[in-house]
Amino acid sequence: MKIICLGTSAGLPTKERNTQTTVLSLNPHYNEYWMFDCGEAAQHQILHTNIKLGKLTRIFITHLHGDHIFGLPGILTSRSFQGGEHKPLTIYGPVGIRAFVETTLEVSASHLNYPLEIIEVVDKQCFQIHDINIKVGLLKHGVPSFGYRVKMPDIQGNLMKEKLIEQGILPGPIYKQFKNNAVVTIDNITYDTAQFKTESKKGKVLVFYGDTMPCENEMILAHDADVIVHECTYLDGDIDLSHKYFHSHFEDVKQLVIQCNVKHLIINHVSNRYAREDIQCLLSEIEHQLNCTVHIADDFYTYELN
Amino acid sequence: MKIICLGTSAGLPTKERNTQTTVLSLNPHYNEYWMFDCGEAAQHQILHTNIKLGKLTRIFITHLHGDHIFGLPGILTSRSFQGGEHKPLTIYGPVGIRAFVETTLEVSASHLNYPLEIIEVVDKQCFQIHDINIKVGLLKHGVPSFGYRVKMPDIQGNLMKEKLIEQGILPGPIYKQFKNNAVVTIDNITYDTAQFKTESKKGKVLVFYGDTMPCENEMILAHDADVIVHECTYLDGDIDLSHKYFHSHFEDVKQLVIQCNVKHLIINHVSNRYAREDIQCLLSEIEHQLNCTVHIADDFYTYELN
Repeated sequence: MKIICLGTSAGLPTKERNTQTTVLSLNPHYNEYWMFDCGEAAQHQILHTNIKLGKLTRIFITHLHGDHIFGLPGILTSRSFQGGEHKPLTIYGPVGIRAFVETTLEVSASHLNYPLEIIEVVDKQCFQIHDINIKVGLLKHGVPSFGYRVKMPDIQGNLMKEKLIEQGILPGPIYKQFKNNAVVTIDNITYDTAQFKTESKKGKVLVFYGDTMPCENEMILAHDADVIVHECTYLDGDIDLSHKYFHSHFEDVKQLVIQCNVKHLIINHVSNRYAREDIQCLLSEIEHQLNCTVHIADDFYTYELN
Repeated sequence: MKIICLGTSAGLPTKERNTQTTVLSLNPHYNEYWMFDCGEAAQHQILHTNIKLGKLTRIFITHLHGDHIFGLPGILTSRSFQGGEHKPLTIYGPVGIRAFVETTLEVSASHLNYPLEIIEVVDKQCFQIHDINIKVGLLKHGVPSFGYRVKMPDIQGNLMKEKLIEQGILPGPIYKQFKNNAVVTIDNITYDTAQFKTESKKGKVLVFYGDTMPCENEMILAHDADVIVHECTYLDGDIDLSHKYFHSHFEDVKQLVIQCNVKHLIINHVSNRYAREDIQCLLSEIEHQLNCTVHIADDFYTYELN
C-alpha cells in the first residue's frame, strides 16, 4: 500500500504545492485507488503520476471547503475519458456534497459513462468495503469536517504443516479449515488452530483527517494507528490563534500522536507562509521529541506501508 | 493590449496544456484584465504570470462545458485573498452560470469580500464597459455557446496646431472643442474639425469565440476583426465529423478569416491527439494560404496589439 500526497497546501495553491488531495493505493490488496479530498487540479497532478483514473473507485471528502472539493467536477468528468467507462465510483462526504456534484455536472451538461453513487456521511458511521473497515468521525472545524479511519483486514498466520503432520493430520481439505477457523474438531478431538499457525498480523490502520482543531473524535480515530495524515496549519506562534480559525497547531498534533500511540505522522495543509527551510528546520527538531516517524509532505510525497 | 492564452487544450488538460482560459490585458487603456472562459486550474496558470487577480474585473464565459468553467470557483474564492477585496467583479455567461457559481460558493461556505455581479447573456446583447463595446453572438454548439466581439474606442487624431494658427485660431480652450467635436463655430464661421486633425484610428476589434461549428453569427462577429481567438478542434480529416460534434475544422476557420477579412488568427482548443510537430507542420502550410497572420496557441502564448 502507498499513500501519495498530491496536494499539500493550505487554502490556496502555490507554485510548488497544490490544494488538498491524498491518494491511497490499495495495491497489492486490491488494484484500486481511493482518494481523500479533491482540490482543484487534482486531475492535473495525476497526469504526473502512474495513477489510473479508471482505477479510482472511492473518493472520501472530509469537508466542503473549496480547497478540498473544487477538483471533483474535473476528476469525475475526465474519468469518463480515461479508463473509467462502466467502472462504478462512490463519493463519501458531508451533507452538501450531493448538491455540489449534481449541480456542477448538470450545469456543465456532463454525462458520466459509469455509475456514480454519492453517500452523505454522519458521525460514527461505519462502512465495510471489501474486507476493509472504514469508520467516520466528526471533527471540529468551521464547517462539518470528518476524519476517516481505514482498518485493513488482519493477515492470517501461515499454516505450520510440519506441526500438523506431527499430530497425524495429513494434507487435504482439512488444512483449509485449520487456516480459516479458530477451532477444528477431528475424531472428537478439538484443536486450537492458533497452535498450528504462525502469528497473525494486525491489519494496518490509516487515518485521513479533515481540517480540525483538537477534539475527542480526533483521538478516537487515531488510537494505535499505523499512520495518520493530519493538517497542521500552524507550525509556530500562538496556539489559541490556530484554534480561533478551527485549525491545528503543531503542539496539538504532537499531543495527538503521543497520546494515541501513532507510529507514523504525515503532516499536510501547512500554511503557505512557511518557507521550505523553516519546515525542514522544524522537522529535525520534532523527530527528537516524538517516538514516531514524521514527514511534512510536499506534493508527490509517497509513503509506502509494508 | 495583450491577449494571453492561459489554457489551450480541448476537453481535457494535458501535461503541457491546460483547459480553456484566455486573458485580455487592457493596459494601457485600463489597468484591468478580462478573462474569457475559466478552465480548471486557471488560478494555477496565473501563478506563473504577472497577472494580478485583484485587477481581474470581468469574466466572460462562452459556454458551460466543464473545460471552460471548472476553474471559476477557485478563481472567485482565491481572488478574495489576492488583492480583490472590495473590487467588483462581473461574470457574463449563458443561463446556468448563476446556478453554477451560487451553488459552488454556497456549498463550500465561501464568502467573497468583493461585490460579484452575474449577468446571463442572450444572443445579440450589447454592453458598453467604459468606452469599450461588447457584442454577444450565439454560436452553434451542443449547448448554448457564445462569442464576444470587443470593439475598442476609436483613437482621435491629434490636433495640427500649425494649421489652426495659420487660420488665426490661437491656442486656448477652443482647441479642446476642435479635439472633441466634429464641427466648431467661431465668429459665424463653421470649421470641419477633421481638417485640423491627423487621421483618427479605428479602435481594435477582438473576438473571443466559444466552441462552435460554422454559423452565421460567427461571421457577423468576425467581420473586419483585428484578431480572433477561435477553436479549431480538428486540424485534418473529415470535416463532417467535426460538425457532428459541433466543432470547427481547420477548413472552417480558414474560410471564416478569408470571408471576414480577419487580420490575425489565434487558434486554440486543438484536439489533444495532435502532436506539437504536426501542428507546426500545418502552421507553415497555412501561412502561405492566408492573407492573415496565424498562431496556434500553446499555453502562455501572448499576442500584443499595438
